[in-house]
Amino acid sequence: MHATAPPLTTPALTVDLNADAGEGFGVWSLTDDEALLDIITSVNLACGFHAGDPPTMRRLCRLAAERNVMIGAQVSYRDLAGFGRYRIDMPADVLADEVTYQLAALDGFARIAGTRVRYIKPHGALNHATMTDTGQATAVVEAAVRYDPSLALLVQPGSELERQAQRAGLRTVQEAFADRAYNQDGTLVPRGSKDAVLHDVNVIVDRAVTMVREHKVVTVGGQPFHLEPESLCVHGDTPNAVEIARQLRAALQRAGYNVAGFCRP
Amino acid sequence: MHATAPPLTTPALTVDLNADAGEGFGVWSLTDDEALLDIITSVNLACGFHAGDPPTMRRLCRLAAERNVMIGAQVSYRDLAGFGRYRIDMPADVLADEVTYQLAALDGFARIAGTRVRYIKPHGALNHATMTDTGQATAVVEAAVRYDPSLALLVQPGSELERQAQRAGLRTVQEAFADRAYNQDGTLVPRGSKDAVLHDVNVIVDRAVTMVREHKVVTVGGQPFHLEPESLCVHGDTPNAVEIARQLRAALQRAGYNVAGFCRP
Amino acid sequence: MHATAPPLTTPALTVDLNADAGEGFGVWSLTDDEALLDIITSVNLACGFHAGDPPTMRRLCRLAAERNVMIGAQVSYRDLAGFGRYRIDMPADVLADEVTYQLAALDGFARIAGTRVRYIKPHGALNHATMTDTGQATAVVEAAVRYDPSLALLVQPGSELERQAQRAGLRTVQEAFADRAYNQDGTLVPRGSKDAVLHDVNVIVDRAVTMVREHKVVTVGGQPFHLEPESLCVHGDTPNAVEIARQLRAALQRAGYNVAGFCRP
Amino acid sequence: MHATAPPLTTPALTVDLNADAGEGFGVWSLTDDEALLDIITSVNLACGFHAGDPPTMRRLCRLAAERNVMIGAQVSYRDLAGFGRYRIDMPADVLADEVTYQLAALDGFARIAGTRVRYIKPHGALNHATMTDTGQATAVVEAAVRYDPSLALLVQPGSELERQAQRAGLRTVQEAFADRAYNQDGTLVPRGSKDAVLHDVNVIVDRAVTMVREHKVVTVGGQPFHLEPESLCVHGDTPNAVEIARQLRAALQRAGYNVAGFCRP
Repeated sequence: MHATAPPLTTPALTVDLNADAGEGFGVWSLTDDEALLDIITSVNLACGFHAGDPPTMRRLCRLAAERNVMIGAQVSYRDLAGFGRYRIDMPADVLADEVTYQLAALDGFARIAGTRVRYIKPHGALNHATMTDTGQATAVVEAAVRYDPSLALLVQPGSELERQAQRAGLRTVQEAFADRAYNQDGTLVPRGSKDAVLHDVNVIVDRAVTMVREHKVVTVGGQPFHLEPESLCVHGDTPNAVEIARQLRAALQRAGYNVAGFCRP
Repeated sequence: MHATAPPLTTPALTVDLNADAGEGFGVWSLTDDEALLDIITSVNLACGFHAGDPPTMRRLCRLAAERNVMIGAQVSYRDLAGFGRYRIDMPADVLADEVTYQLAALDGFARIAGTRVRYIKPHGALNHATMTDTGQATAVVEAAVRYDPSLALLVQPGSELERQAQRAGLRTVQEAFADRAYNQDGTLVPRGSKDAVLHDVNVIVDRAVTMVREHKVVTVGGQPFHLEPESLCVHGDTPNAVEIARQLRAALQRAGYNVAGFCRP
Repeated sequence: MHATAPPLTTPALTVDLNADAGEGFGVWSLTDDEALLDIITSVNLACGFHAGDPPTMRRLCRLAAERNVMIGAQVSYRDLAGFGRYRIDMPADVLADEVTYQLAALDGFARIAGTRVRYIKPHGALNHATMTDTGQATAVVEAAVRYDPSLALLVQPGSELERQAQRAGLRTVQEAFADRAYNQDGTLVPRGSKDAVLHDVNVIVDRAVTMVREHKVVTVGGQPFHLEPESLCVHGDTPNAVEIARQLRAALQRAGYNVAGFCRP
Repeated sequence: MHATAPPLTTPALTVDLNADAGEGFGVWSLTDDEALLDIITSVNLACGFHAGDPPTMRRLCRLAAERNVMIGAQVSYRDLAGFGRYRIDMPADVLADEVTYQLAALDGFARIAGTRVRYIKPHGALNHATMTDTGQATAVVEAAVRYDPSLALLVQPGSELERQAQRAGLRTVQEAFADRAYNQDGTLVPRGSKDAVLHDVNVIVDRAVTMVREHKVVTVGGQPFHLEPESLCVHGDTPNAVEIARQLRAALQRAGYNVAGFCRP
């Protein structure tokens, strides 16, 4: 559709950059959180169940608030040992309460920092489960609706989570991954597979601009997949994550986009 | 006994009855929470660190809200294995964050139930530590001040927690224990000691009325200790806890007291 | 097959009674462990992942050893909040290590008590998973083979766990449930369903004797299912568990069976 | 005292190099464990309470066994969030069981790797507590005595742990720290203090050789403190830890020492 760059006055010209942070626990940490927070516009913070001890949660909420970075709750199954990567088949009503607990705890630190949690992005196995499982998706949606119906949900296009969130009247924000290979149905090629993750900064940057400007991504089969991302995910745990994020932001701005959160921080 | 009954219009004629509840975890439980909630006027709810799984927290917040029972956060050291009964010497700043996390998580369930957490009562070893340790007391107070300065703190008279809370401008609510023996300095005789816990319902009830009306309790040495409790604690884990609570409430009402929470529920 | 009662000299005339115990954590407990230990001949002890704090593990190993009751490791997914009732989809190699950890920890307390862990009985969702999932069954079997190949596995007839254990050369001991309804394929009617659990002591006792003597159980459809149980499971968490266990033991003895563990304690 | 190097035939000419390893949990890790294991002769492995998930424990036991490195249990308070750095005031009998649990779990992985746990070295706050607290020291000693009286205890000279271990008939192995400043009473200058940790490789190496050859260390006040270390601790979490360890080992060998474990691996 967008043969040429869209004019600068269009609201669609805003794109959000999100990344995970706070993925440590106690003495352990994974990422260079402060450097990323200077580049991204929304941050997915662990809430204590797969990572995220309270001092880390407080510090990152403060750092995000100081930089006008939107705070999202990266809710997870209760699984420190597996970093939230193992699916736990809990009943939907129990899961909804587990999500509420994490969401409210993080929101406490956001309030102390003078802001609020603005969105939810399920982590790891919970994210994967909510792509197709109605019960698990509904649990996350119900927790959001009960706690704060103005919360947005970061979703993948066509996922069950997107459907349930929209049915419940929640705002959904489509997310895309510039550094990940896509299957023809829009799902991501699993991390274990060959070529699942892209590493060339130039390729990643070009792909990102194509995603937001032309609303498509070339899948592993060669066909394009249609998407309309409002937010691009930057991975903080790749070796040159900060450099990739910086170049991505610069390229998007050169392409005429306003890199900003999808709602007020 | 009542040389002159105090006039019914005096605000001091209100007394609160508090009890712990929600002290289970997953399949485990300790107390008959629902029966107690029909009698007491404020409830101290475990927040997940020494007890209190999220489904229990949600259910008890709902039950409390339905009965206009005030909700308090029974914050604790992170210690499921020891039920929060072992002191953990963590730095005050870390402790403040641990308290914030619990407080905010419980408040999430209180909000969902249409109410809010109104006060904090530290649990077990944390409660004991805040009686005399300035750092630990300050940590609890700071967590309250940052999160919601309208929170009250349930305190024992003369404790470090009372001093620090008052210094920080928080409301303090003095608590007394009708079924526990007092030392001459106003501290409780430790549970392990002989005669630390009273069991005779009539003795407990008389003692409670004396505490709120005459502002004193007879200590183990025979001397009276001065106190002005706004709240009496009922233990939910004694065999006849519900019966004791019921008679206590009835006796206080007969004595002309309005049994009610110390602020709006 | 056994139209008449087998002669009293047959070794098959021995039957084991097993029950879960130690299913508490810290201040919490579920069952009257000591009373059951006077009746049963093998005990499935929680190892800290779904229940079972170290002081409880040590105490129960001692009590079991004093009564010549065989100790089994009731290994589980790492899930205190869900009491091991939620399936956790962890890779088989990680699961094998989680099982080894629990097994070795319990065996430490068994050694201190002068005995050893003699068998494994997976708990809750892990037990359910090993009925049909090759990866999960193999993980439990590998943990046993590596740690102590003389360990037995308590299994249900026709389960994947039974197949994998036998393939690995481990001894399997078939278990039956006298107080549970059976489907026609030998699986148990799920607990949630109507009539899943039998409560009449006489019915339970008759059923048990039929199981061990006639090698069959009448399923919900009315047809018999063939089984050859070496061990009968007694549930410790039903209200009259101790009474049921006592009558079951007496009835089996009256029927000419030697109620004893399936190997030395 | 030792003006000249002791003759090469003296048994005292053997010195052990120990280091912590396996101090990760799930996705998190702290140290380059494999590189260190090629240099040291005994390794202190976390057992799951402050760090050390089961897959890490199994892997490190295997790596240690392959290199003939002795395995020690680095037992700790139950405190993942604080990495075992916060003292937990639990009763001695409960602590003994917590230690047994960890010790037996690690020993399970050691057995699988064809070896055994040979010694105990308490971690963090538990180590600190056992320096002076009789109850906490006794708990660790009792756990060792009950589980395996051939276990050694790595101790600091003059500590309560050393006294209690010797009283109970356990072998004690004195440990020294070449990269840490010593107070005049032989305790370590706390990490927070200025100059608590030495960084110059040459200084560390000289200091180590002086410790094992001359049985002394120069304290912060300038006076020498007498010690007779059988084992030197190498810190794995300093930036150039592997390099320091390598030079230390080489220097000790040049000085005529046999760098080897204090018992069979």
